[in-house]
Amino acid sequence: MKFLPSLPIMDWGKSYDRSNLVNDLVAAVIVTIMLIPQSLAYALLAGLPPEVGLYASVAPLFLYAIFGTSRVLAVGPVAVVSLMTAAAIGEQAVAGSAAYWAFAITLAFMSGAMLLLMGVLRLGFLANFLSHPVISGFISASGLLIAASQLKTLMGVKAEGHNFIDLVSSLIHQIPDTNLLTLSVGVVATAFLFWVRKGLKPLLMRLGMNARAADIVAKTGPVAAIAVTTLLTWAFEWQSQGLKIVGTVPQGLPPLTMPQWDLALWKELAVPALLISVVGFVESVSVGQTLAAKRRQRIEPDQELVALGASNMSAAFTGGFPVTGGFARSVVNFDAGARTPAAGVFTAVGITLASLFLTPALFYLPQATLAATIVVAVLSLVDFDILKKTWAYSKADFSAVLATLLTTLTMGVELGLVVGVGVSLVLYLYRTSRPHIAEVGLVPGTEHFRNVLRHTVHTSPALLSLRVDESLYFANSRALEDQVNDAVASHPQLRHVVLQCSAINDIDASALESLEAIDKRLRDSAIKLHLSEVKGPVMDRLKKTHFLSDLSGQVYLSHFQAIQELTPEILLTK
Amino acid sequence: MKFLPSLPIMDWGKSYDRSNLVNDLVAAVIVTIMLIPQSLAYALLAGLPPEVGLYASVAPLFLYAIFGTSRVLAVGPVAVVSLMTAAAIGEQAVAGSAAYWAFAITLAFMSGAMLLLMGVLRLGFLANFLSHPVISGFISASGLLIAASQLKTLMGVKAEGHNFIDLVSSLIHQIPDTNLLTLSVGVVATAFLFWVRKGLKPLLMRLGMNARAADIVAKTGPVAAIAVTTLLTWAFEWQSQGLKIVGTVPQGLPPLTMPQWDLALWKELAVPALLISVVGFVESVSVGQTLAAKRRQRIEPDQELVALGASNMSAAFTGGFPVTGGFARSVVNFDAGARTPAAGVFTAVGITLASLFLTPALFYLPQATLAATIVVAVLSLVDFDILKKTWAYSKADFSAVLATLLTTLTMGVELGLVVGVGVSLVLYLYRTSRPHIAEVGLVPGTEHFRNVLRHTVHTSPALLSLRVDESLYFANSRALEDQVNDAVASHPQLRHVVLQCSAINDIDASALESLEAIDKRLRDSAIKLHLSEVKGPVMDRLKKTHFLSDLSGQVYLSHFQAIQELTPEILLTK
Repeated sequence: MKFLPSLPIMDWGKSYDRSNLVNDLVAAVIVTIMLIPQSLAYALLAGLPPEVGLYASVAPLFLYAIFGTSRVLAVGPVAVVSLMTAAAIGEQAVAGSAAYWAFAITLAFMSGAMLLLMGVLRLGFLANFLSHPVISGFISASGLLIAASQLKTLMGVKAEGHNFIDLVSSLIHQIPDTNLLTLSVGVVATAFLFWVRKGLKPLLMRLGMNARAADIVAKTGPVAAIAVTTLLTWAFEWQSQGLKIVGTVPQGLPPLTMPQWDLALWKELAVPALLISVVGFVESVSVGQTLAAKRRQRIEPDQELVALGASNMSAAFTGGFPVTGGFARSVVNFDAGARTPAAGVFTAVGITLASLFLTPALFYLPQATLAATIVVAVLSLVDFDILKKTWAYSKADFSAVLATLLTTLTMGVELGLVVGVGVSLVLYLYRTSRPHIAEVGLVPGTEHFRNVLRHTVHTSPALLSLRVDESLYFANSRALEDQVNDAVASHPQLRHVVLQCSAINDIDASALESLEAIDKRLRDSAIKLHLSEVKGPVMDRLKKTHFLSDLSGQVYLSHFQAIQELTPEILLTK
Repeated sequence: MKFLPSLPIMDWGKSYDRSNLVNDLVAAVIVTIMLIPQSLAYALLAGLPPEVGLYASVAPLFLYAIFGTSRVLAVGPVAVVSLMTAAAIGEQAVAGSAAYWAFAITLAFMSGAMLLLMGVLRLGFLANFLSHPVISGFISASGLLIAASQLKTLMGVKAEGHNFIDLVSSLIHQIPDTNLLTLSVGVVATAFLFWVRKGLKPLLMRLGMNARAADIVAKTGPVAAIAVTTLLTWAFEWQSQGLKIVGTVPQGLPPLTMPQWDLALWKELAVPALLISVVGFVESVSVGQTLAAKRRQRIEPDQELVALGASNMSAAFTGGFPVTGGFARSVVNFDAGARTPAAGVFTAVGITLASLFLTPALFYLPQATLAATIVVAVLSLVDFDILKKTWAYSKADFSAVLATLLTTLTMGVELGLVVGVGVSLVLYLYRTSRPHIAEVGLVPGTEHFRNVLRHTVHTSPALLSLRVDESLYFANSRALEDQVNDAVASHPQLRHVVLQCSAINDIDASALESLEAIDKRLRDSAIKLHLSEVKGPVMDRLKKTHFLSDLSGQVYLSHFQAIQELTPEILLTK
């Protein structure tokens, strides 16, 4: 248990000074202001009462400060995980019910336990199996799904569905019931927030503000939108004209809660909890790594699993729901100058104060304003460039993005992720199962060998030089056998086959058997098999077997050496 | 549809002459004699009436002769596929019932249809995902399972179970009920057959017979065992003392039958049919390839799928059950001198004659004798050497064998195969997700670079040379980021990082993003990233992106060139 004796907090805690304190306090104030509307909004997105978002933003920040290795990561509710929470629990209970909240708490507990376990078992590498294109497709599709799910709140109607098509068709049917006041508030708030995001920062900079400050002011846009629409609603009693408001938000500290100890429920939630854990971990680690690199710091993925696990467990015991390190808030924390995780602790204190004293002020807050903040936040995640980019670069990656995107939109977040990972693994295996094997020849006047199809090179009818551009393993060893067989059949004068092994990083037991079979068949036809440029680790392995002593030919250090010895006449060719 | 215009039969049919005819006829007679007891035995192993084994050895041979690309492959019932058939149908119907036979016919039809489809779609490469160690573990475990399943017949008791533990514990309980006469016949027959296999061939060769003839005579051992025990049973009426005999076997041509058109049944049988198809295909192709290579011939895996598909479909319409190319009979066919698939057609005629005229002679044939032929045949498949071999060579391969062996024995053939493939794929992915990345230095006085940990080489504190021994893809690109970050953190004077890419056969979109991220982070620390020895196809791909123009450093043709230009002081080091 390497992480126990050396908690990250001991690292930065030792040298904590006044300058750190000031920086952290300033950052905490800014993040707290940004976090309040976000927490409320993501709780609503998850189908939970708004105060649950505040609860989920307190204890996890403390726990992350103790166990986390990123200095600036801000943990709490995030958009994609909230959507996944809604999808998971939506099948088990009615949104807004007590059971629904209890299930969300249980989900946080399970996800926390899984993350902790993965951390202790050092399984952080598993997240690497989510490729960038799959993550990108998944995040874009989730962004669209989330935006679509918020349209009903912006229009003041009811709509159902956990996939894009159901949601949109349900919304289209509801158009006649649109509440025009709600729609107006929603559209104006959305437009304002988009302008804040795109237009306010340049404006402030033209007015002489520096870039960092302008950026931070722009991030407080949602607070302004909330303040203005809340005041207007209170002044004109818009709630009586059908505008839905947040209403009573209970004042007080986060409650002490317990997960449900119900095995049947656990079984139902196991897969969603695992997917939430993995997605949360990947999102968090990407943000953490990006920000750490900017200050030449490092984060420790396995320790991050422990930290996120502890954070989610703490969310479960304090009335919260699944959390992770969020992109937007971490960037704000970083830009605002946070130095250590103490900034997170101060933020948690700020949120606690808000849930103790601020909640009455939220009574008249229109839900449409919160929906607008969500729509603007998630649409920035939607990026279809990845489709164009991967199409140009690699059709396999493109297929993985497209499969993830379409499945997420049409069949939901969980299946989308599973299909994405599945497709990318299958395509990778397919690619490696068809190795590129080039016949190479000597570049005249050099000791280098190049593909006979791409270059003018010298060869001999008595010797076949094959360069295998892939590690040899069970899925491609038969392809090698086939290619050697084909080549032999088309070279009647052949006496030597030399495999250039410079790109072979591994030879597994199946491939070893294939090499033995190739050697045996070549021997039956009085042809010798040689190897050249075998790597150190591969050679070490082969030395443990009879292969080298049984081999009809030799192992040469360089391919040129093999040619020199076997068919020196090539060297004389002009 | 490449296979339609050029049927393999047209190939060899054109040049068919008298010499081929004689050779094929001789081989056919020998194979027929060997095949009769084998067909009966494997039908019983599959839980079917013995004559079904004969039916399954007629039509498939005709169809394979038309569509197959191997000149000598002998198609029919084989041990492992018969066991898998019993396991698949055993869950749906009672062995010996009419429904059981109907389901076996349906299974043959489905397996045939799947093979045909895979052939048309050119999916032959899928079989490559069954690694040699997995196949080996699977075959050994199946051999043990089959031998255990025959013990009940040898002991004259009833026993149940589709896994080794159930079977053996059931047998132990039955020991008191052992029929001593049955046991005696079984044990003597088994001992005789083992002696024929091990001792007869050397004896015949000492008596002056040549090796090939001695081998073929030894293969007729089962026929002798059957003749003798049948005669003894008839003479002494052993059936009245509890010895189970084959009894009435209907005389006549294979019947015309139809598969069950029952969607619910098809659903139940889909997975077993797929597994039977894949296992049958792999067994058949391995045999076919081994024998074809001996005569410098080739087989075409996708066309083999079509041929085996047609063979299984024909089995379904003529009262048979799933078939494939068998090892023992194909080797006998080859050794007996078969030249073309016409030998198969003649064998089919021989089996037809047997089912027309010979079946009354089988009435007194003891089932224990058939069980003995199965036990002796399958125990030769059991080979635990693979455990020792893979343990020494590669722990990953060893784990895959062990997982396959144990799962097959304890949880049955189907799960065994699925777990084996799963474990080997996971281990392969795990291995490639942790690439070997070596820091390399210049070997003094040469242009070669070697691992700094293994060799005495020259390096510079300003330049880090990393050789990546794996293609870069999503599962390992983060590991590269980590290693570069670590290396940079421990080299404070660093100005250049050069990645030697000679073993990188592919860079997918995720890895490209990682390289971009590495470049960006290095640039933030005023370090340049360079590449060297990038392969042609990888370079072609990179040229489609902005990566090369955005790169802080250069791409060098050789690593030595990079060192010459960036840190020429290394070359002066003595």
